[in-house]
Amino acid sequence: MAAIVKTPSTGKIPQEANNNDGLLLSPEALLSGDDRTMFSPTLIGQVQEQFNLSLPNDPDGGLTVRPLKVGDYDRGYLPLLSQLTSVGSISKAQFVERFNVMANTRPQAYYVVVIEEKKTEQVVGSATLVLEWKFIHEAGARGRVEDVVVSDEMRGRQLGKVLNQHLVALATHFGVYKLSLECKDKLIGFYEQFGFVKDAGNNFMVKRFDKPEDQLAKL
Amino acid sequence: MAAIVKTPSTGKIPQEANNNDGLLLSPEALLSGDDRTMFSPTLIGQVQEQFNLSLPNDPDGGLTVRPLKVGDYDRGYLPLLSQLTSVGSISKAQFVERFNVMANTRPQAYYVVVIEEKKTEQVVGSATLVLEWKFIHEAGARGRVEDVVVSDEMRGRQLGKVLNQHLVALATHFGVYKLSLECKDKLIGFYEQFGFVKDAGNNFMVKRFDKPEDQLAKL
Repeated sequence: MAAIVKTPSTGKIPQEANNNDGLLLSPEALLSGDDRTMFSPTLIGQVQEQFNLSLPNDPDGGLTVRPLKVGDYDRGYLPLLSQLTSVGSISKAQFVERFNVMANTRPQAYYVVVIEEKKTEQVVGSATLVLEWKFIHEAGARGRVEDVVVSDEMRGRQLGKVLNQHLVALATHFGVYKLSLECKDKLIGFYEQFGFVKDAGNNFMVKRFDKPEDQLAKL
Repeated sequence: MAAIVKTPSTGKIPQEANNNDGLLLSPEALLSGDDRTMFSPTLIGQVQEQFNLSLPNDPDGGLTVRPLKVGDYDRGYLPLLSQLTSVGSISKAQFVERFNVMANTRPQAYYVVVIEEKKTEQVVGSATLVLEWKFIHEAGARGRVEDVVVSDEMRGRQLGKVLNQHLVALATHFGVYKLSLECKDKLIGFYEQFGFVKDAGNNFMVKRFDKPEDQLAKL
């Protein structure tokens, strides 16, 4: 089992995000092929142990929590995301290019955590932690919970809870000063169970660029 | 004057963010010293021309809009940020380390735009555009407006408007599918002038980690 890693006491960049410390796979294995993971898989085991995380309600032992892999393109990852929002048509080459952009950030800024169902070899849940580097808060890091989705077919097995626990644990491990997300009204209660509160003093505002006429409007 | 660059029609990573295209300074000048800029200074001129941006209300010609420089540590940049929120004590070495993390992102993800007052050699305004890479929206990019601050002493000169126009122009130039921010109630009207609308269907939720007891609460 991986060693327990102390939570940093400040928002400085943690060692884990800065290098490949604790990597089980060789650098070569990480750099090519469908088995390439977005971040070190040992980190999942570390935070599961460090924070005593719940695992999926999984009597058959068929569900695995792990980092996104390149090969998840062929395990239904994009169709899963399309249950959340528009994804469009992305070739495997385009997917790998974007995967590499995220995976190659140093310090590591993108943590896409997925749940795979072994029986079907399909990704059935995904959630992303993104770290944003700041000068404020002692050159701290802010975390964001993004793109949380669980397959329609896996409702009631608390996979959303498992995914969010992992993201909160990773964010805590990295010492962010704040973790935030946007959610629909019906999900407020869901996120409150992880300690999120609605930020009453702050208004979330958005400018969309979906239509060409939006782009230059009001500039 | 820099050539006009077409706005990309999709959220794909633009060339400008991918390489050092259009750089005026030599790579060596960018890599060391107080004159190192966070991103290519020519980009500012490009979007000013492309989008016909307002410049500061500046009868004396003493205000410059430009990327953050390493040397802004000695031009009051951190005290300016402390008008916005807690900054804490950051040495110049720590500042440069964090600056380099942001400046070295590839594709470039951090665009800190500042306004310098030549007379006092002080940074009097700052705003940050952060790009976040996505698989959704055809492997698109989402933009965020962060850490907008104008010196108390420069009220009424519309520097906030100038800074935000530059960020919206950069985001448009890069082809983000969405640009978002969080703001206090009193600033809703300010941001509406740039085409932002309050996202009524979305709740902004936050989990803070400022106090040690927050870290493990509700995990």
